[in-house]
Order: sequence, then structure tokens, then C-alpha cells
Amino acid sequence: MKRSAAICIILTAMVVLSLYFTRAKAHAAHSDGPSYAADGKLLLPVGYRKWVFIGAPLTPNGLNGGKAGFPEYHHVYLQEKNLEAYQRDGIFPEGTVIVKELALLRKSDYPDGSSDSASGRGFGAAVFNGLDVTVKDSKRYEKTNGWGFFNFGHHALPYEATSKEASEAECASCHKAGAAKTDMTWVGFYPVLRGNN
Amino acid sequence: MKRSAAICIILTAMVVLSLYFTRAKAHAAHSDGPSYAADGKLLLPVGYRKWVFIGAPLTPNGLNGGKAGFPEYHHVYLQEKNLEAYQRDGIFPEGTVIVKELALLRKSDYPDGSSDSASGRGFGAAVFNGLDVTVKDSKRYEKTNGWGFFNFGHHALPYEATSKEASEAECASCHKAGAAKTDMTWVGFYPVLRGNN
Repeated sequence: MKRSAAICIILTAMVVLSLYFTRAKAHAAHSDGPSYAADGKLLLPVGYRKWVFIGAPLTPNGLNGGKAGFPEYHHVYLQEKNLEAYQRDGIFPEGTVIVKELALLRKSDYPDGSSDSASGRGFGAAVFNGLDVTVKDSKRYEKTNGWGFFNFGHHALPYEATSKEASEAECASCHKAGAAKTDMTWVGFYPVLRGNN
Repeated sequence: MKRSAAICIILTAMVVLSLYFTRAKAHAAHSDGPSYAADGKLLLPVGYRKWVFIGAPLTPNGLNGGKAGFPEYHHVYLQEKNLEAYQRDGIFPEGTVIVKELALLRKSDYPDGSSDSASGRGFGAAVFNGLDVTVKDSKRYEKTNGWGFFNFGHHALPYEATSKEASEAECASCHKAGAAKTDMTWVGFYPVLRGNN
């Protein structure tokens, strides 16, 4: 009886520990959604460079009169569960966060911003240069088709710690005009959102 | 005694199940390194689009006489643990796999391959178009500075299931000439490999 009690205590301890770690993991997953400061501003997303990358549209300053709206590479990331939901349902879940990190081009050899390299003439990222975020929340952002738009600065690191929602004219109006049918997201730039897998 | 025995059986079952899932996870992690077929060819990496993205060099066909060596976007991924090791040590661990997936540009409006979009004139990926892989194994690839080079096809999906090692002239010679000092990898194209974090 004593031996069986001791075994039970050990087994129970193991089960408790395994439940604890399962719970810790669930909590980490929950914190992946948007987080807001007390004043309602969005907090800078954390760890986004380890989210799933979906595409890198590029608008070189050299092809945009020296002043691209988004200079220059746009590295776009979202979380795996939200990507999988879009691939399955054609719509993003509530709480989806999409991050667009900008990066300036390497030193150019040509007016278009391109440079020569071992792999040919083309483009490559040099330094990060800004961060934009969209958040899906159909209630909070009802007026802009269910998405909020945020800018954490278009400049070198570090970015702003918080961002207030951008005005409709700054961001949402353009997404409404061109991407309303695809959940306000320019899916044409991302092969994995168009079934190319 | 009967009740305590029943509890023990239940607890033991739970522990066995939790160990099973832990083991399954460990096995998945192990399979992240390079895998080879019985004939020695490298197996096509699995799940690489969910690895950590580090950069998207772009060599448009339009800027390379219609025949870029790597047409056209190069989406580059590696595993988090290997990225972190490089950031810490300046060298990649044995077993590091780096994947370069190619993607063709969207329909162009200009001879350089660029097109107009809401965010300005520039470039965006349309469809995947090939996969190249490098594997670090200092013994197996001793002759080419510890890295093996593989090509799973430069064409639309699906890619080849296996690849034999490319000849030194095809890949390694160029990496030796230009990237020998940075563990055979063109770190200049990847901000996170150059401390821009």
C-alpha cells in the first residue's frame, strides 16, 4: 500500500507538471493577438520576424521619384494559424495581425536603385526602415471594413512603442478601393494567399 | 486498495500519453535537419515556408537579358535555432539547411519587369518558380568549405522530390569566391544576419 501510494504521488506530480507546461504554452499562443496600451494605442508587435513570411513587394525610391510611399522592401508576416484560416476559409479570423516591415535597398549602381551582384543585376535589402500593421477586429474597426491600420514609424530601428489608429484617408481608403473583396488585404502580392502552394 | 490501483492506472495512462506527445514533438524537431534518400540524394525540405524568413533578393529577368540565373524573387528561409546560432557565434551549426525559393514577378508594365500598383511602381511575386538548398556538413562537404549545394528545379510547383549535390562549378565556386569569409552565405543581403535587429 505504501509503495502504491508513493507511485501515485510521483505520477500525480508528473501529470501536474505536464498540465502546467501545456497551460503555459496555451497562454503564449493567446498573447499572439493584438495588444493595446491603457490609452487605446496598439502596442508594437513582438517577435513578428519569426511569424510566417508571405511576400516581399518592393517599391524602390528610384522608381518612385525618390519618394516611395513605402520605402522600399515590404516584408509581410502573419501568424501561422491566421494564414491557415485564410487558406481554408478565404477570410481572416478576428484578431489577425498582419505586419509589413520596410527595408531600404543596398547601395545602388543604377538610377532605379538596383545593383550588380554575383547572382545578377537586381535588388537586396540593407537596413530596416519602418513598420506598418493591420489588425482585424470587426467591432472596433467597423467603419473601415473591420480592419485597423497603424504606423510605427518609417525610419531606422527602433520603431515607436505604440501607435494610434491611422485615419481612413491615410490607409483604409486605399485598401477599401482596391482590396475590399479580399478582406482588405492585397492578396495578389502573396502566392500562398492565392493557392500557390 | 482497489480505488488507489484504479487511480494509478488512470494516472499512468495520462503520463504515458503525455510522454508519447513529447516524444512525437522531439521527433519532429529532429527531422528539421537535412534528410537523405537511400541513394544519398537530399530530400526536398518540408515545411520551409514556416521557417524564419531572412530576406528576398530579387533579380528580375528584365534586368538580366531575359535570363536571370535565379528568376526572380529569392525567398530565403532557415530554422530559428540556426539563425540564432549565427547571430550569436557568426557561424552556422552543423546540419543547418538554408532554403532559397524562387518566384516569378507579377505581370509587368515596364521592360525591367516592374508594374504599377496602389503602393507605387515596383515588383511583387506571382508564382513560385524553383527551389535551391544549401546544407552545412563539414565532413560530407569538406571539399566545398563544408556546404553542399542542391537544386530541386527552376520551374513551377511541384519541385523534384530529391536532388543530387550540384557540382562545384555550378554553385560552390561562386560562394567560395564571394562569401567564404561569412560561412559561404551572402549575409550582405540579409539584415538580420548583419546585426540589424
